[in-house]
Amino acid sequence: MTHEMTKLTAEDQVAKLLQINLIEVAPGYAKAKMEIKESHLNGVGTLHGGIMFSLADYVFAVAANSYGTPTVAVQASISYYKAPAGPILTAESKELSNGRKICSYEVDLRDTDGTPVAKFTGTGYRKS
Amino acid sequence: MTHEMTKLTAEDQVAKLLQINLIEVAPGYAKAKMEIKESHLNGVGTLHGGIMFSLADYVFAVAANSYGTPTVAVQASISYYKAPAGPILTAESKELSNGRKICSYEVDLRDTDGTPVAKFTGTGYRKS
Amino acid sequence: MTHEMTKLTAEDQVAKLLQINLIEVAPGYAKAKMEIKESHLNGVGTLHGGIMFSLADYVFAVAANSYGTPTVAVQASISYYKAPAGPILTAESKELSNGRKICSYEVDLRDTDGTPVAKFTGTGYRKS
Amino acid sequence: MTHEMTKLTAEDQVAKLLQINLIEVAPGYAKAKMEIKESHLNGVGTLHGGIMFSLADYVFAVAANSYGTPTVAVQASISYYKAPAGPILTAESKELSNGRKICSYEVDLRDTDGTPVAKFTGTGYRKS
Repeated sequence: MTHEMTKLTAEDQVAKLLQINLIEVAPGYAKAKMEIKESHLNGVGTLHGGIMFSLADYVFAVAANSYGTPTVAVQASISYYKAPAGPILTAESKELSNGRKICSYEVDLRDTDGTPVAKFTGTGYRKS
Repeated sequence: MTHEMTKLTAEDQVAKLLQINLIEVAPGYAKAKMEIKESHLNGVGTLHGGIMFSLADYVFAVAANSYGTPTVAVQASISYYKAPAGPILTAESKELSNGRKICSYEVDLRDTDGTPVAKFTGTGYRKS
Repeated sequence: MTHEMTKLTAEDQVAKLLQINLIEVAPGYAKAKMEIKESHLNGVGTLHGGIMFSLADYVFAVAANSYGTPTVAVQASISYYKAPAGPILTAESKELSNGRKICSYEVDLRDTDGTPVAKFTGTGYRKS
Repeated sequence: MTHEMTKLTAEDQVAKLLQINLIEVAPGYAKAKMEIKESHLNGVGTLHGGIMFSLADYVFAVAANSYGTPTVAVQASISYYKAPAGPILTAESKELSNGRKICSYEVDLRDTDGTPVAKFTGTGYRKS
């Protein structure tokens, strides 16, 4: 990984638990994917909203921490469009604003076919 | 469990993955708790936002599905106040509105001491 | 007004435009009401979501600024339950969290009968 | 206007109150602008969040109603980046998802220079 990650994101246990694969990190940007497993489903066999959120939240955190300043989430929203098809879920985080103390990111979630399935928006607070 | 749960929530795999303990279900209401484990932490040792969201999302889904009509989340928001202290996280979901097709729920998350640590709001769509 | 208001909220022009009547201010708390007029309606004769949001945003700002520290909104969400009945709309803002730099407030909107019609959640950033 | 507008958006009184100028409507798309006036400011002389929200909410409603099916907002979120510079505020609404009953739209708000100042996300429910 050539770009900076803070301790917050580099040693994330949930990324390990969900076997999230970080594909790319750049200043204010991050992209990752994960494989949907049986343990990620709700009772009707579709991907759990909390898993989609967790992947989105992770790439948001990586992007927000990419400048090396510890940044924590203060708020997040997610809109679900449809259940993802296929086993792979991808999340791409882009910077909307980068203030001295407050930053905003959007994350687009896509399924195996590249079809958008959800959108996440997160607000971060830079701690120092 | 005396109140109705739909297949959506009764066979939720993520509730098993996170070992969520459902304490109470009533029409339009649900309460659950979970123990925070090493695998639920971000890299600075505090609880991952995605785990807090997943617990909140689960009690929202249980409350929204408590009338027996399959109900899916279309949108959710979460505001984080502070990192939870202690090993137990509790989530309580209350109904804000119960329309024929659209419903809204709020979820308060509290830590071991009962201190509020986050608030979740979810919008559901009743499928039939 | 016995409690402190910052210049931000005391000289708000939109409160004048909408003829918002501030009923009560206390530390971390505010309550206000307004009369719904013809100019506040959408094309099917129900109250415009932007007007509900504006009233909620105003009491959020008053509550968040009630300690005398200039505080600006960084994010807000609103869930609509139903169209309000009758001419009066009331908004009550309560504090969810009060950090040194970040604060959260919820606002419940009620119609003339006291029926809840919408819920707003706002995140503020304290500027100094 | 060549594209369809429902009564909901065509006779919107708030669009008149704020003198919103609808620039373009296409299926699932709308763009509008307005001039920031003295009556749209908060007490420190910057644009009121409720006015930004109202403009965004209007283009969201126009885009969501552009297929001719009456569609109402059930939830909306807004993230503020910075105070807009100059007198003109523009809002552009794009479709994120278009389900049979539920739809999602994002709205980007830009100031006179074209600088992004806020992002809005809205969820609609199609009534028939």
